[in-house]
Amino acid sequence: MKGFNETEAVSSLVAKITKAAATVRQTKPLAPSITNTVTVNFVANAQLAAGGAAAMVYLADEGECMAQAAEAIYINMGTHFPFYAETLPRTTAKIKALGKKWVLDPVGLGIGGLRTQLTEGFRNTPPDIIRCNASEAIALAKLWKLDVAAAGVASSGPSGVESTDEVASAVPFAVALARFTHGAVAVSGKEDFVTDGEVGVWSSGGSPLMEKVTGSGCALGGVCAVYACVTDPFTAAVAATAHFNVAASRATAVCDAPGSFYVRFIDELYRATPQDIAANHLRAVNVAE
Amino acid sequence: MKGFNETEAVSSLVAKITKAAATVRQTKPLAPSITNTVTVNFVANAQLAAGGAAAMVYLADEGECMAQAAEAIYINMGTHFPFYAETLPRTTAKIKALGKKWVLDPVGLGIGGLRTQLTEGFRNTPPDIIRCNASEAIALAKLWKLDVAAAGVASSGPSGVESTDEVASAVPFAVALARFTHGAVAVSGKEDFVTDGEVGVWSSGGSPLMEKVTGSGCALGGVCAVYACVTDPFTAAVAATAHFNVAASRATAVCDAPGSFYVRFIDELYRATPQDIAANHLRAVNVAE
Amino acid sequence: MKGFNETEAVSSLVAKITKAAATVRQTKPLAPSITNTVTVNFVANAQLAAGGAAAMVYLADEGECMAQAAEAIYINMGTHFPFYAETLPRTTAKIKALGKKWVLDPVGLGIGGLRTQLTEGFRNTPPDIIRCNASEAIALAKLWKLDVAAAGVASSGPSGVESTDEVASAVPFAVALARFTHGAVAVSGKEDFVTDGEVGVWSSGGSPLMEKVTGSGCALGGVCAVYACVTDPFTAAVAATAHFNVAASRATAVCDAPGSFYVRFIDELYRATPQDIAANHLRAVNVAE
Repeated sequence: MKGFNETEAVSSLVAKITKAAATVRQTKPLAPSITNTVTVNFVANAQLAAGGAAAMVYLADEGECMAQAAEAIYINMGTHFPFYAETLPRTTAKIKALGKKWVLDPVGLGIGGLRTQLTEGFRNTPPDIIRCNASEAIALAKLWKLDVAAAGVASSGPSGVESTDEVASAVPFAVALARFTHGAVAVSGKEDFVTDGEVGVWSSGGSPLMEKVTGSGCALGGVCAVYACVTDPFTAAVAATAHFNVAASRATAVCDAPGSFYVRFIDELYRATPQDIAANHLRAVNVAE
Repeated sequence: MKGFNETEAVSSLVAKITKAAATVRQTKPLAPSITNTVTVNFVANAQLAAGGAAAMVYLADEGECMAQAAEAIYINMGTHFPFYAETLPRTTAKIKALGKKWVLDPVGLGIGGLRTQLTEGFRNTPPDIIRCNASEAIALAKLWKLDVAAAGVASSGPSGVESTDEVASAVPFAVALARFTHGAVAVSGKEDFVTDGEVGVWSSGGSPLMEKVTGSGCALGGVCAVYACVTDPFTAAVAATAHFNVAASRATAVCDAPGSFYVRFIDELYRATPQDIAANHLRAVNVAE
Repeated sequence: MKGFNETEAVSSLVAKITKAAATVRQTKPLAPSITNTVTVNFVANAQLAAGGAAAMVYLADEGECMAQAAEAIYINMGTHFPFYAETLPRTTAKIKALGKKWVLDPVGLGIGGLRTQLTEGFRNTPPDIIRCNASEAIALAKLWKLDVAAAGVASSGPSGVESTDEVASAVPFAVALARFTHGAVAVSGKEDFVTDGEVGVWSSGGSPLMEKVTGSGCALGGVCAVYACVTDPFTAAVAATAHFNVAASRATAVCDAPGSFYVRFIDELYRATPQDIAANHLRAVNVAE
């Protein structure tokens, strides 16, 4: 990517994020989910608080129906039912046939046969956004047999910053996944990394209490899908990540334990304006070949 | 209905609501549910806070067992498992055979084949209370091929009140459903409408934040079932609706965002006395043929 | 048990509890669950707040995989799916084959055929901790045809304390279950009783609001599994019970309704230090033959 200019990259993103957040607030887009039973309530409440609408289904024809009804679908692999062997392939095939978008959270990759088989199969109907943690990004790139070395990206995390080391180690894998899917990948950690395979963005803020509340990552995937209804995958993934970071920063400023933190986090997701979201600190880096 | 007198209709209801709410607090009735995985926790906590007891099941013989054990069952159609094809018909058949009551929330009507097929089948084992929103009331009356025109009820909502327009459009459908089931129908909206097919009641209060918390309607259905354990369906539906409206009004007076609103709403459900519930503003209208 | 000395029994337990709680905070042990959909979110958040890690699964090979990955598994019988007929026996067999531990919550025993059949089958792969209420302890001992009379234990609850009467009636059954499983049994009530079949411990504290929040017992089972990852079953069951009692006592001191109580309870689970947990009042009694 010749002539990469961080200031321009960030200011372009800020403009797109502001517009996307305003559009979500105005249009209340429906982003249906097939998601785990543990955190499904958090996903739905986060989607509502962020300005979207939620609908959760399990059956194959319901997944297809949701693909018809909405611009983007969220699939989270946290818990599995046997009939997902039919539901997930049919839903993602329908999404692709309709030219709609979908967001994958490959949580728990490696646990059990069905999860592995279905996640491997998504290689043929690739998601537009992958929301994951560092180890899941690495595991998914390996499962799909991506040539990460060929991506030619060394760890581009800020060196010496302990809080991002874990995410930094996943950067080449995230870049390879983004290039393969022609979509965006958001790797969550102490500092979050989002990439479309050419530009990488580090989003800071958040709270250490996020990992003491089950489903913070799942809920972020659901909000990525809300944003993906109104903008491109990369902007959507950065906007959702920034929205979470600003809400978590504000919640952690007044709450020091996970019960009250969760309540305040939902409140702050709801209160954050498009300007608040766009103002969350971003740094852009060039990860192009 | 000759000699309809709104004052008498309301004061009669107020007496029944006060008695029902006191009985719930004293007897802690069990109202088991077959309900969606998204909001099942909210349903159970709302039932406990309102004074009842909760038990959730999925399997056919468990549904039958619950019909034996309790006076009223709650069935919410939010999420479906394949085996509901057996669970729901067997459970409702058992309820009818035992002369018990059940509450239906037909949420998501129109999504997928199983949901439609099962909801259509409920025509043969009709619920005693239907808790729904305006569009679901209309869709259900159409699915059951009810002759709404013959019900001879024009929209009887208060004219010019924007907040009730949507519910008002569903009034003839709600009346037709109530007459067909010989039960009660509660249509939730900015102002709520409850009818037994002869009398219609508008219940006000509540909060705009209710729609920012996933499962407010589902939880209301569960609390309708708690009340249905101790009183007739119409009184139960009005009492549960009033209980929710008073709790939401009190919560919204001190909370301006959905995370803290939810917490306070549960607290206020728990705190509301029978007198508080009965004091929530009601208006009665004649919807008899 | 000759020479039983309550002071020594309690001081020995206090030392073990302090060590276990410190180890949990340091090592963040993973205690996976197969648990009901109603309270699964509470279980996970309680496990995180108490210092552990959570993972929830439903499928047979996933249960086996979790048995490989963790030191202790939690199985809660609250809601059932048809495929549990395969999942639960395969998971408990794997746990036993690996010499790992598991915690059973036999909630809802008696509802439906599958639940009864599976719970009966656990007689052959007995749990290391049973977390239950009084009536479930009695029902489980009867289902497993244990010779409770032969256990030779009269009710050893404190006489005249109304709050423990219900739990007291289950004491002989709990003792019989503990001797049969060679593990620990924790019976929750107004005052909680935990036994390994030789020593019985009464743990006080808690809050009447616990029963107004769905899943308090389920969450306690999940936290028992967290502690069982780092210590023996009896210490684990007492430590988890004490941890819950201290957190509930603190929450009820500042909250008088179930919505806010739940939030504060999670906060206090998180805040309680090993010393706080070990300082919760315990009384030891001799229940040995």
